[in-house]
Amino acid sequence: MEAVGIITEYNPFHNGHLYQIKQIKSFFPEKCIVVVMSGNFLQRGEPACMDKWIRAKQALQNGVDLVIELPVTACVQPADRFAYNGIEILKALGVSKLVFGAEHANYDFKAFARQVDGVKGNFKKYDEAYAATFQQAVTAKIGYDVSKPNDLLGLAYAKANFDLGEAIELIPVQRIQANYHDQKLDSTQTIASASAIRKNYAQGNVQVLKSYVPEITFNDVIQNKLVDWDDFWPLLRYKILTTSPKDLQYIYGMAEGIEYRLQQQLEQLPVTASFDEWMHTVKTKRFTYTRLARLAITILLNLKQNDINTWNNSPYIRLLGFTSRGKKYLNQVKKDPVFPIITKVSKKSKNTILKADYRAGKVYQLITGEEQDLKKAPIRNFK
Amino acid sequence: MEAVGIITEYNPFHNGHLYQIKQIKSFFPEKCIVVVMSGNFLQRGEPACMDKWIRAKQALQNGVDLVIELPVTACVQPADRFAYNGIEILKALGVSKLVFGAEHANYDFKAFARQVDGVKGNFKKYDEAYAATFQQAVTAKIGYDVSKPNDLLGLAYAKANFDLGEAIELIPVQRIQANYHDQKLDSTQTIASASAIRKNYAQGNVQVLKSYVPEITFNDVIQNKLVDWDDFWPLLRYKILTTSPKDLQYIYGMAEGIEYRLQQQLEQLPVTASFDEWMHTVKTKRFTYTRLARLAITILLNLKQNDINTWNNSPYIRLLGFTSRGKKYLNQVKKDPVFPIITKVSKKSKNTILKADYRAGKVYQLITGEEQDLKKAPIRNFK
Repeated sequence: MEAVGIITEYNPFHNGHLYQIKQIKSFFPEKCIVVVMSGNFLQRGEPACMDKWIRAKQALQNGVDLVIELPVTACVQPADRFAYNGIEILKALGVSKLVFGAEHANYDFKAFARQVDGVKGNFKKYDEAYAATFQQAVTAKIGYDVSKPNDLLGLAYAKANFDLGEAIELIPVQRIQANYHDQKLDSTQTIASASAIRKNYAQGNVQVLKSYVPEITFNDVIQNKLVDWDDFWPLLRYKILTTSPKDLQYIYGMAEGIEYRLQQQLEQLPVTASFDEWMHTVKTKRFTYTRLARLAITILLNLKQNDINTWNNSPYIRLLGFTSRGKKYLNQVKKDPVFPIITKVSKKSKNTILKADYRAGKVYQLITGEEQDLKKAPIRNFK
Repeated sequence: MEAVGIITEYNPFHNGHLYQIKQIKSFFPEKCIVVVMSGNFLQRGEPACMDKWIRAKQALQNGVDLVIELPVTACVQPADRFAYNGIEILKALGVSKLVFGAEHANYDFKAFARQVDGVKGNFKKYDEAYAATFQQAVTAKIGYDVSKPNDLLGLAYAKANFDLGEAIELIPVQRIQANYHDQKLDSTQTIASASAIRKNYAQGNVQVLKSYVPEITFNDVIQNKLVDWDDFWPLLRYKILTTSPKDLQYIYGMAEGIEYRLQQQLEQLPVTASFDEWMHTVKTKRFTYTRLARLAITILLNLKQNDINTWNNSPYIRLLGFTSRGKKYLNQVKKDPVFPIITKVSKKSKNTILKADYRAGKVYQLITGEEQDLKKAPIRNFK
């Protein structure tokens, strides 16, 4: 059996995601759909609005066959690393095609990746973010605008695939209706961005979401209090105020003395200030909101370089759930697994390769009360 | 002018404390009453129920002339160190007498101190707390029972005074009515223990407290939500879950691998478990509740050996408030100060000698919202 892969966050699973699954099924009705999904903390530096188990269930009940967790050390990364880690897992699972949304599905991402091999941003521009200087260098090289978020991510997938021997066929799909950063819901449409959905939830517009998410997601939204940064903010604030800059320096992603600024700005704010208010006092041209938000997550989870090394040296496949087709595909993979396949967290693994994921789960649990790892078995959706 | 000293916590200031002040005034009507008071975290390992400024004000309005903060590094210590640090400050202030409550005011504490010089507990008894073995050794040596909490503290004061050259005259005063550990209010009396007062507050019996505290304390109790361990518990829990045992090991007071037990017991508890429930799962004969509670504070505040060293190497006198008599006494001391006198926290001192106090203030502020150090001036009570 062949498999088609998606790298995603499903925060939460909405009609746009469902549309993508349906497209894949119409093209490849017999193939297994494999999803690599962020766990409880996401690439852009925020907690997931619902935990990984709830979101995996949403995916499985909407046509996905196999859900793999992108470990927190692999996920809370700049886009290039995030993409690389996702592609690496899909390759290890023997997935032959990657479907991804793009603002310009007509671009030849594979060719672009070859062209920009070795291209780097100008790191000397100290008043700019590295990502911005990299984008400029890329555009100058290939002559096309790749500044849109999904195009950029597509290029990152293509580059990772190039670096990993082009084992996977890339299938960009034109994004429809909602834009990635859209914050408003359009009542003439049925697809909205995940951030518009979360924003409306936060503003109390819950019933209206029914039009933009599958029924199962809507039920989950009704039954759970969606998690956001403000839930973790008291913990992050406490952590930054009680840790010396010397110790903060060892947090993954800390650079250029920003630890002093993080702490100083925080000390000056009233206790009533929100996460977002703090971020805006810290943000600079060089340290963008997203980069700082990601750093805030690594501080919150106490992630250090050795946690990242553990993942890089010992990657694994962490199973969150499967359908009967997913199980069949998995059995095929298991005959000759490239990475170990983890179906449950043992006393040993929680202190070794799964240490960072386990810690992230414990922190997430402080807000939701739900155990994330111990005694959890992959979801079986065999209906 | 001469001064009489008290070492205390005022958690909160109650009628028993007022009675002691009145006794001192009747014996020494012209002397300055100097109090060394714990700040926002207390000797027995708990947060103060109201912040140090509120409690200093209560003291000043009830007859105390000068309130000095016992720094957090000097205060969150076993009784012997706590006593030593308090006596050291009083001596540096040139205080000539120390008044303290005792269950046996007839004991000759000065003589006892000389007798037990060099006496140590049997540290090899691994199933007992050190404090218990020390008490046994002391009783064996002097032939009197000093197991009652205030007698024990009196002996600790006497020992510290002995070690510091017996500069201070010791005046034990018979404790009346309430016992230290009493949890109930006795309606036929007007004095209750501070813990009985806090316990009744926690149970919602607020109006009844009017009989046991001066008016100003009662007003403060009405106007403030009293702080307790459960307020800080989510932060402590987060800290323990996200810190490796290897790093926890560097916390002041951590010993004998207890860091593993602290973490393991916590991981197994539901998120709904309270601080007290966790403590009871961790507690052993060797690690008593009080020792663990003190350890919980040093973890919460990230206190390490170098913080304690900073205090030991550079002790100081941190002024919280004074009356006109207190001011006069202070001017006398200032002519030839033994330790630097701190009236406000500067940008420099918050990063050097006051680092630990500043951090403790920031953590306390997370709960109350009130800044504890920056821009705070000593209270002047000149009426």
